[in-house]
Amino acid sequence: MGRIRGPASRRPGRPGRRQVTRDDGLDVAGLQRRLAGFAAARGWEPYHTPKNLAAALSVEAAELVEIFQWLTPEESAAVMEDPESAHRVRDEAADVLAYLLQFCEVLGVDVLEALRDKIDRNERRFPAP
Amino acid sequence: MGRIRGPASRRPGRPGRRQVTRDDGLDVAGLQRRLAGFAAARGWEPYHTPKNLAAALSVEAAELVEIFQWLTPEESAAVMEDPESAHRVRDEAADVLAYLLQFCEVLGVDVLEALRDKIDRNERRFPAP
Amino acid sequence: MGRIRGPASRRPGRPGRRQVTRDDGLDVAGLQRRLAGFAAARGWEPYHTPKNLAAALSVEAAELVEIFQWLTPEESAAVMEDPESAHRVRDEAADVLAYLLQFCEVLGVDVLEALRDKIDRNERRFPAP
Amino acid sequence: MGRIRGPASRRPGRPGRRQVTRDDGLDVAGLQRRLAGFAAARGWEPYHTPKNLAAALSVEAAELVEIFQWLTPEESAAVMEDPESAHRVRDEAADVLAYLLQFCEVLGVDVLEALRDKIDRNERRFPAP
Repeated sequence: MGRIRGPASRRPGRPGRRQVTRDDGLDVAGLQRRLAGFAAARGWEPYHTPKNLAAALSVEAAELVEIFQWLTPEESAAVMEDPESAHRVRDEAADVLAYLLQFCEVLGVDVLEALRDKIDRNERRFPAP
Repeated sequence: MGRIRGPASRRPGRPGRRQVTRDDGLDVAGLQRRLAGFAAARGWEPYHTPKNLAAALSVEAAELVEIFQWLTPEESAAVMEDPESAHRVRDEAADVLAYLLQFCEVLGVDVLEALRDKIDRNERRFPAP
Repeated sequence: MGRIRGPASRRPGRPGRRQVTRDDGLDVAGLQRRLAGFAAARGWEPYHTPKNLAAALSVEAAELVEIFQWLTPEESAAVMEDPESAHRVRDEAADVLAYLLQFCEVLGVDVLEALRDKIDRNERRFPAP
Repeated sequence: MGRIRGPASRRPGRPGRRQVTRDDGLDVAGLQRRLAGFAAARGWEPYHTPKNLAAALSVEAAELVEIFQWLTPEESAAVMEDPESAHRVRDEAADVLAYLLQFCEVLGVDVLEALRDKIDRNERRFPAP
């Protein structure tokens, strides 16, 4: 269920933004629009409270942890060498991003800006040696 | 510690990419470079195994959940009205993204591509009614 | 907040059970009664939905993970040698148990029985080599 | 994998403890012995670092959260009415307890005592109104 209630159908988009994306729809704002459209088309919006989306995000993060839970640090660094594990890692990372973007969308948080501000703050608080 | 071992100092960057960003450094690739630089400048790379970064990501996701854990669905939807909660939400969302990007960086995963592929797949698997 | 909405005031208890406990109140049923009483005395029952308690449990589990997130396997095995870490480990383990017991209480689950049944099942499913 | 690396085969036990249990093997110490035996019989002890067990515990807690993630508070309170959900809840609660007990076992933490101390402390810190 967690895995299904996520992604989004393509919406008309805003052509004025197109030239700034790496690829059509492959920037955060474009993905966020697709995710919102996907949920809307399936009537999932009532389920997408911030509380539920935060829970879903944490569940997906745990599925990422599960891949690594019994591995040594060395094995964990080699996880992409096995095609099946590599696929699982990509898939779960995508799920984490999907819920993070949906969470930020419903709350009006610009997560890229939030991260830039945090990095700026951390650079001042923890100067490099 | 979790909150500190994250963000990154600016690296020289690649001017050829600049015109495709929304803002200087405010795209995923730019933030990923800053995070990698921040960790490198502090000698944190040995700690940044995929296993540890996945764990750190799940810890930050839980800190997001913590904000909402006793709230009703309605209260959770109004969380940005309180400036202190709003700040906390932005901050924890930034932390989740920071660890997700660092995790993807050390494993060579393009998370935007992974999410686009997942949305494509989900649109085929779960056609809108 | 998470840490506060947990434990429970002593209730009259049932003397007939006393002789079967290791120590007064130091069995699962006794702790569960104290936790329920603590929550009731503070009017927290409306917050203690199974959904919220499961979330709180996962938040406490993450706080346990946080202690270990940057440690090597060897450092993690020595965590009780440092008095401050040892205290934190005990404290977070207690929080996990507190929410697990409260969760099971509100749903009428006997968690000891559930675990015994699971062990029985696993012994049949995964015979020792 | 997470679900398998848990429970434990019966060990000889200590008859002197028997009279204090609710049922043969159905107290925390008895379950802890069975879990330790189960892991030992399968050669899993090297995997059972405190770090790994804390991660496994958080993964199981997330599986509990997953059951509730899209439910309203009311639906979450009725989760035991559906036999399949009820089974899943019992099963995941058992998994959480299994990893908590194994975690405490490898670190020498008496989790019942830790919780009793925490309740005592909380009763002093947060007096009932």
